Amino acid sequence: VTQNGEAIGPAHIEDVARRAGVSTATVSRSLRGLDRVAPRTRERVARAAQELHYVPSPAASQLASRRTQSVGVVVISSGRWFWSEVVCGAEAVLRSSGYDTLLYIVDDPSGRRQFFDLMPLRRRVDAVMVLGSSVTGREQDALRRVDVPVVLVGGRMPGGASVRIDDTSAAVTAARHLIALGHRDVVMVCSKATDPSSRRTTRLRRQGFERALHEHGVHGRVLVTHPGVDGGAAAVEAMLSSGDLPTAVFAEGDELALGALRTLRRAGISVPEEVSVLGFDDHELADAADLTTISRSPNAHGHSAAMLLLSALGPVPSRPADVVLPTRLVLRGTTGAPPKSAGT
Amino acid sequence: VTQNGEAIGPAHIEDVARRAGVSTATVSRSLRGLDRVAPRTRERVARAAQELHYVPSPAASQLASRRTQSVGVVVISSGRWFWSEVVCGAEAVLRSSGYDTLLYIVDDPSGRRQFFDLMPLRRRVDAVMVLGSSVTGREQDALRRVDVPVVLVGGRMPGGASVRIDDTSAAVTAARHLIALGHRDVVMVCSKATDPSSRRTTRLRRQGFERALHEHGVHGRVLVTHPGVDGGAAAVEAMLSSGDLPTAVFAEGDELALGALRTLRRAGISVPEEVSVLGFDDHELADAADLTTISRSPNAHGHSAAMLLLSALGPVPSRPADVVLPTRLVLRGTTGAPPKSAGT
Repeated sequence: VTQNGEAIGPAHIEDVARRAGVSTATVSRSLRGLDRVAPRTRERVARAAQELHYVPSPAASQLASRRTQSVGVVVISSGRWFWSEVVCGAEAVLRSSGYDTLLYIVDDPSGRRQFFDLMPLRRRVDAVMVLGSSVTGREQDALRRVDVPVVLVGGRMPGGASVRIDDTSAAVTAARHLIALGHRDVVMVCSKATDPSSRRTTRLRRQGFERALHEHGVHGRVLVTHPGVDGGAAAVEAMLSSGDLPTAVFAEGDELALGALRTLRRAGISVPEEVSVLGFDDHELADAADLTTISRSPNAHGHSAAMLLLSALGPVPSRPADVVLPTRLVLRGTTGAPPKSAGT
Repeated sequence: VTQNGEAIGPAHIEDVARRAGVSTATVSRSLRGLDRVAPRTRERVARAAQELHYVPSPAASQLASRRTQSVGVVVISSGRWFWSEVVCGAEAVLRSSGYDTLLYIVDDPSGRRQFFDLMPLRRRVDAVMVLGSSVTGREQDALRRVDVPVVLVGGRMPGGASVRIDDTSAAVTAARHLIALGHRDVVMVCSKATDPSSRRTTRLRRQGFERALHEHGVHGRVLVTHPGVDGGAAAVEAMLSSGDLPTAVFAEGDELALGALRTLRRAGISVPEEVSVLGFDDHELADAADLTTISRSPNAHGHSAAMLLLSALGPVPSRPADVVLPTRLVLRGTTGAPPKSAGT
């Protein structure tokens, strides 16, 4: 701040005090609305603060209130597309309530371990949102030590709030759709994830697939491949080389399904006339690929999770809730009846 | 903290002082490594702090140092996929250097205006990363008032650091590829964005397209549609209904290209035999769609931008740099020679 009081950088409390001709303690009491300050003084302080573009230091207010007005969002295992949508939904709610969003992306095993060992959230956030389908016991202990409300988005956590879908029943719906179309030879393509959270999601979806097939006495196989588009492509390549292509493929995620579609297209196999393909997630580009899939709204996950945290931080906190959001089957162009020659 | 000193919540400095039998001022001086504390006292304080899982309050250290150890990342206009990749690249670098990432997603016009009016970053961050292709004069003033290093990812900013690609020359490369394949009737599909940043990117890419066509005396048209997959689909539908389909489509973004591919596939038009399609961005799913496109690395954008900020915060800050990252043409299955009947 220059001598004539023009701001050339952020003003400090001392600058406001000098301009208003009062002590820094008076500036602080005045701006915090404490009533031991004369109205005329308060007005002078407010005018000086405004003229100098002075903003009270968040660190100072935080020290006084022991609140940080920040929420930590920790991504431990979720696809890029999913977490960015969740974060978007959550950040909008938090920002409109005056909270900052601190983002930590620790989806690699070593980063994740280090993060929970150091636990940089302590004293830095008022609440924590974890994105992933499960949290280890050790991680739960670390979160408990932060001693703020926690919500898990994508799975359940003992004693904590959660926002998730019912993976098993969504997979039952998907498999039933293929069975209803007449498919009697269905392969589920799953990925072999390295982290326990993704493995858990896979297990739940696989259980749903197997339950639906069992109900209808339908023959089904499970093929395990590596994650992502290339994993889906490799799975179909393997089936093509062994001459053992089913009439329908249910991929546990859209990226696997898109990879499967790519290999089928390259091999000149028409979808859905010869092979049906069904995904899971309704990735933003599933529509462009005309992929039939299971849809959930990650944005709604973020929104609900932020609301749970705000409610826990409010004057009447409620018990941690387990919110199960709906899913639905989105019919597009990659599923149809099996070819007649596949006769059953 | 209970009477026997077992932590049941985060310990405060008073708890450590009581356990170590010293004043809170001594705890503070001791843990900050100031040398007015006797070695034996310092050891006792360190042990008490460890036993109580005490972490010095970031707000308190921040008040002392006037550093927040946080970087604000502000998304003003970028596709979901692009910004999530940039944030991922940046967050990893910042976290490994001990900085937190505060994320603000203000890509809607009213949220953006409100954000720059309130400017919640003041006193809260040590540096700012803005994601978008341009920043208005008013926004630049608001950023200047925060008085910390700023980097723009995705465009240039007067007086500030930037990390970007050369959109125009990348578009020249794309158009030249189509011309080299023999195309003499090319349509560029652009989207009519509502925000000035996206409009600027469109203008730069369009200039490149027009320059390449002009160089080779090739006939070209520009078709403006709405953004996203549906915009690309609508553009091709319009050309189909007017019976005026070119032999090649250059979309200014991959989502537009994927929409174009969807309409062509639904209309039974084979790609690239009848129509070639070329995108821009190398979206994570461009590979699944076999889309020929211009590739850039958003993760590398985030990494470089974080490095620029860390360097500006370091002991020997350098002048704001303008980093232009490379792009390359990725040849996949959606571009080929024009059909012979299109004879030139």
